Amino acid sequence: MTLIANKSTNREVWSGLIKTYQQYLPVTENTPVVTLLEGNTPLIPVPSIAQLIGRQVQVFAKYDGLNPTGSFKDRGMTMAISKAKEAGARAVICASTGNTSAAAAAYAKRAGMKAFVLIPEGYVALGKLAQALLYGAEVLSIKGNFDQALKIVREMANSYPVTLVNSVNPYRLEGQKTAAFEVVDALGDAPDWLCIPVGNAGNITAYWMGFCQYHQSGKCDRLPRMMGFQAAGAAPLITGQPVTHPDTVATAIRIGNPANWEKAIAVQSASNGEFHAVTDEEILAAYRLLASEEGIFCEPASAASVAGMLKVKDQIPTGATVVCVLTGNGLKDPNTAIDNNQNAFKPGIEPTLEAVAQAMGVI
Amino acid sequence: MTLIANKSTNREVWSGLIKTYQQYLPVTENTPVVTLLEGNTPLIPVPSIAQLIGRQVQVFAKYDGLNPTGSFKDRGMTMAISKAKEAGARAVICASTGNTSAAAAAYAKRAGMKAFVLIPEGYVALGKLAQALLYGAEVLSIKGNFDQALKIVREMANSYPVTLVNSVNPYRLEGQKTAAFEVVDALGDAPDWLCIPVGNAGNITAYWMGFCQYHQSGKCDRLPRMMGFQAAGAAPLITGQPVTHPDTVATAIRIGNPANWEKAIAVQSASNGEFHAVTDEEILAAYRLLASEEGIFCEPASAASVAGMLKVKDQIPTGATVVCVLTGNGLKDPNTAIDNNQNAFKPGIEPTLEAVAQAMGVI
Repeated sequence: MTLIANKSTNREVWSGLIKTYQQYLPVTENTPVVTLLEGNTPLIPVPSIAQLIGRQVQVFAKYDGLNPTGSFKDRGMTMAISKAKEAGARAVICASTGNTSAAAAAYAKRAGMKAFVLIPEGYVALGKLAQALLYGAEVLSIKGNFDQALKIVREMANSYPVTLVNSVNPYRLEGQKTAAFEVVDALGDAPDWLCIPVGNAGNITAYWMGFCQYHQSGKCDRLPRMMGFQAAGAAPLITGQPVTHPDTVATAIRIGNPANWEKAIAVQSASNGEFHAVTDEEILAAYRLLASEEGIFCEPASAASVAGMLKVKDQIPTGATVVCVLTGNGLKDPNTAIDNNQNAFKPGIEPTLEAVAQAMGVI
Repeated sequence: MTLIANKSTNREVWSGLIKTYQQYLPVTENTPVVTLLEGNTPLIPVPSIAQLIGRQVQVFAKYDGLNPTGSFKDRGMTMAISKAKEAGARAVICASTGNTSAAAAAYAKRAGMKAFVLIPEGYVALGKLAQALLYGAEVLSIKGNFDQALKIVREMANSYPVTLVNSVNPYRLEGQKTAAFEVVDALGDAPDWLCIPVGNAGNITAYWMGFCQYHQSGKCDRLPRMMGFQAAGAAPLITGQPVTHPDTVATAIRIGNPANWEKAIAVQSASNGEFHAVTDEEILAAYRLLASEEGIFCEPASAASVAGMLKVKDQIPTGATVVCVLTGNGLKDPNTAIDNNQNAFKPGIEPTLEAVAQAMGVI
């Protein structure tokens, strides 16, 4: 028995993004597909947020936090690890303080490979590495900063039989572009606007690749304006210069010198898009709004897309369709949730119906 | 523009479990569907674990941790909240220390209702309530135990216009049974064995309801043996009597007196199933195995299904298909991951290629 579409139900069962979109990806029949059935994440209507804009604007959240390891990184990693396996790799390596390490570890171990993660000492809370460690990665903490870690893993991949799976690995973006395919498959066309958090700028580049490829294949009639949002404390694409000490609650986009800087500028230009900065306060307000009005719990960095959209909402054309990308699961960062909820915690209530009713405000 | 299947791609886009399975659910065209596009979770092959059994046995993990709030509770909650909204409810209430509170809060707030969560004081770490609080529930901590909390929410729902969404709400099981539909849709038939963690015994009851209903509708040719696994420190269904002080690392099944006790016994009997206890050590071993061999990070309680299957593996027929249910996302409980990984953390490495290569064991 194999995992196939069940004809009797006529319901097509998802087989992972590589098998689904293989005709658009650099794979062949010989590529061993390493998959956790990633992708196929929900495009959730967010009507309460749309109401803040009005004018028949429709807003959807592409909730990529529901990927197997909890972030969009799985899309790139299924490709990177499958291609590494095809090439005969036995080990992979990356420098990462967060979501990349979890995805790399999960897919590498599933492929029967070793996974090495380099982190800068003192910079990463051990809790953030819980996933990578449980997936069985070897986590090496160096007495240096992130740039040094990245330099070493690049050299490592050049000198030893270990495959680099940081975002410079070109297969990562190939996998990530499938999110754009899914958006078009769900809407029937590309949205008018695509709002997306921008850190290293790999994901905005990948989405644009996906929309363009689908457009060329006749799968959509239009292309979206790509609206990228950075955290104010880490906004080199808005200020035009690298940020030496990036600082924001949105740790997943706390990047001062994006690897895909030029690609991002090219996407902005080609799509007639715009980049804007949003403050941590705006990010956290959107983060709370998504949870308390729509029931969606995302990473703080993810909320930058919604915060940014609301910041420039007067520019949205009447009746437009807008998709906001939510890149990660809020469960990755429970402390931010504890520190930033609406604080409706009422302790010390007597265990009686009357006392509880009174605390609830119903009597 | 609405969220529909895109004919041009021939790829059916998931519309949530109520719309997909409405013919099997107690809903009408007038039921307002409150959905986060839950369900449609992956059925992931776990070949490394199957290899531990051999004899051409195929094993799949139904990874329900990829539901919107991170657990299978979303399946029941989309039904419970939709029906509450249909009935005109303005507020819902539950007693919960974990996954139920998160799901109740998310769906209630999405429906524009108030959500109240009752917890026993001192029993729940605030971190466990991060989700419910962020989703905007009002969390009331009473000076009493869980049984008292449950008694009060039942009385509350009888005396005030607030809907009870604990598992005694019959719509919860109706929603949860759709997981069985999805398993059959993916495999083309029911599996030979369904292995599932058992706490309150609602989920095993719901799965069985689903398999039977699909079987009666001709969607599957057979019915699975229902193999239920409890934690050794909370195993009333195995010992035959309630456990006064249930104790296990698998907090989501730390229940001494299951609400669905009699239903669970009926399922065991009707399906020719078996219930067994697994120790915390066995649960944690399966938990690590799922992560480090298959790349799947689940809640400790979820791993009871795999631990149990491995415990009785000699009973599995040659060539059988086995599905293990993983009820929750491992990100719900990061502390267990930190305390129970393989500890491959190497600090204090000099930031040079040579030092890193040596730490990796490649030179």
